[in-house]
Amino acid sequence: MKRIHLDELHDFSVRTMEACGMNRADARTVADVLVGTDSFGVMTHGTKNLYGYAQKLLAGGLDAKAQPTVERQGPAWAILNGNMAMGMVSASRAMELAIEKAKNVGVAYVGVKNSCHFGAAGYYANLAAKAGMIGVVMSNADPIMAVPGGCGVSIGSNPFSYAAPTSDGKSVFLDIALSNVAALKVVMAREKGEMLPPGCLVDCEGRPTTDPNTFPGQSSLAPMAAHKGYGLAVMVEILSAVITGAGMLSQVKSWNLDMATPNNVGHAFIAIDVGQMTDMAEFEARMDALCRELRSAKRAEGTKQIFMPGEMEWAKRDKALAENAIELNDAMVANMEKLAEQFHLELNWAE
Amino acid sequence: MKRIHLDELHDFSVRTMEACGMNRADARTVADVLVGTDSFGVMTHGTKNLYGYAQKLLAGGLDAKAQPTVERQGPAWAILNGNMAMGMVSASRAMELAIEKAKNVGVAYVGVKNSCHFGAAGYYANLAAKAGMIGVVMSNADPIMAVPGGCGVSIGSNPFSYAAPTSDGKSVFLDIALSNVAALKVVMAREKGEMLPPGCLVDCEGRPTTDPNTFPGQSSLAPMAAHKGYGLAVMVEILSAVITGAGMLSQVKSWNLDMATPNNVGHAFIAIDVGQMTDMAEFEARMDALCRELRSAKRAEGTKQIFMPGEMEWAKRDKALAENAIELNDAMVANMEKLAEQFHLELNWAE
Repeated sequence: MKRIHLDELHDFSVRTMEACGMNRADARTVADVLVGTDSFGVMTHGTKNLYGYAQKLLAGGLDAKAQPTVERQGPAWAILNGNMAMGMVSASRAMELAIEKAKNVGVAYVGVKNSCHFGAAGYYANLAAKAGMIGVVMSNADPIMAVPGGCGVSIGSNPFSYAAPTSDGKSVFLDIALSNVAALKVVMAREKGEMLPPGCLVDCEGRPTTDPNTFPGQSSLAPMAAHKGYGLAVMVEILSAVITGAGMLSQVKSWNLDMATPNNVGHAFIAIDVGQMTDMAEFEARMDALCRELRSAKRAEGTKQIFMPGEMEWAKRDKALAENAIELNDAMVANMEKLAEQFHLELNWAE
Repeated sequence: MKRIHLDELHDFSVRTMEACGMNRADARTVADVLVGTDSFGVMTHGTKNLYGYAQKLLAGGLDAKAQPTVERQGPAWAILNGNMAMGMVSASRAMELAIEKAKNVGVAYVGVKNSCHFGAAGYYANLAAKAGMIGVVMSNADPIMAVPGGCGVSIGSNPFSYAAPTSDGKSVFLDIALSNVAALKVVMAREKGEMLPPGCLVDCEGRPTTDPNTFPGQSSLAPMAAHKGYGLAVMVEILSAVITGAGMLSQVKSWNLDMATPNNVGHAFIAIDVGQMTDMAEFEARMDALCRELRSAKRAEGTKQIFMPGEMEWAKRDKALAENAIELNDAMVANMEKLAEQFHLELNWAE
């Protein structure tokens, strides 16, 4: 583990993306997303992947110079072509456009095709919340889940996220995969030599298994709550890919499997400008009342506190911002140092 | 069990609602929703509740004469006041308005307050699909779920539904409660003397229990996939109630507990006019490809067929329409006969 100042991590991310050929503004966008995600404690989806993204930019599976373009649009919607730009660039642009259109008409949907892994969906949902709107964000992904009654991998665990503004600037937000557990938790259980709880994995014959050593290859993730998570994953596929023209299901390959090949991932962004629909102060007062009532639920034995969705992430972010620093694990440290060497960049760890 | 022709069930529902003081058009709307829901095999949310709705209309908790009114609106949104009209009347009007607005600008959200139990969310999502649009429908409900780390009932199992059009007119659609299992499945297990699978219920101290005899009263439903279902239920609460001014959380009481009191339930309806965003034939071809690939997933041992979301319901509907009849269980038959007696209505069973 090594400690790094948030400013330095952001600056290093910008310089790395610039070294890959990206302009300053886009490099900053990527750094905002990745370091922002780390600051929420979602270390699996932030700068951890910077090394991989850089290699994909160099290998040609991503285009550092590409700009997303609006293919078609109307008052309350747009379809963007990501043109193989970094997922963070296209996704940030798409949510900004959704917010702009929602300002005009109240609600907007923006779909994106020809994109790639965009990091944490929750980051973009929070862009809307920061603008006083409700944001909803989805993306399809390479198949990693079985369908009910099936085996093998048929559909992605397709992330779904929303964020809603509150009076203190800390949104209520959720960012989930639609599998019962995230793939990373299976990998972590394997590394610790632990079995999984029932309901997480389905083996090659479609039987439930709790053995993380079977994953991936000999097992697939089970959808969250069986047919429910499956149905929601299909919805994400429709809104992200069927409408937009992105790759669907098996057409989407894992972004870091073949660095030279574009992935044609699809995303969906929705912004809802609640301030047009109700008085914003009243909306916030009602959000506060909602939070107050849920937080005051009777606690189970051993529970110290009931959390709102996103509250744990905001606490981590407060701590990271207060210290202006986060800890990177050994694998992340090694990747950062490899990047520094590869691109002859300075990299300063905090003491 | 008794068999009844769909026409007769529809006609009887219309006459019952008219006997409660409703005009013909609204009574037909209610019958369309309830019989339509029965025809999909969702017998828990259709005419099963006609008896209860009628008593609530008579007791004053619902207003047979009330018409939903638009409180505020913009190009892509509206907030409706249900004015204590039947949930089916306000919900049908709301989705029609969302469809109309989506035709103009591409996407629309309509929120509803001062409503009541609206039956099956999937019915309204399918109104959008029938109009060639994607429909998304949500509603809050009386608290029946515990929150993670909590016990007792804190939030409704808030239904969520979507429907997307396909080339054969049979939408891909999902209609789920955000609990791990529906309350009715707990009741059915209790009646059969069976234990539940783990993860369905949380007892008074917040410990998991599999004993359906504890429900309700001594246990609460567990949210689908723990914090994931909880987070989604909060989203439904925000879109249905926080924005609209409907009752939130504990302010919403079970609709059939106190028939004289209005419930101020909130709903949310979203329509997305995909035909503006992409060529409709191309959209349908892509939907067909999506379905084809998912249906051809490798099957687990013992699985005969992989289903798309909603496919089982469409099969039941095909059968019901082909036979122009469905079977009502004994409790439903008894309720229908009580209604016939109460309002001096003819009621003809099929042979």
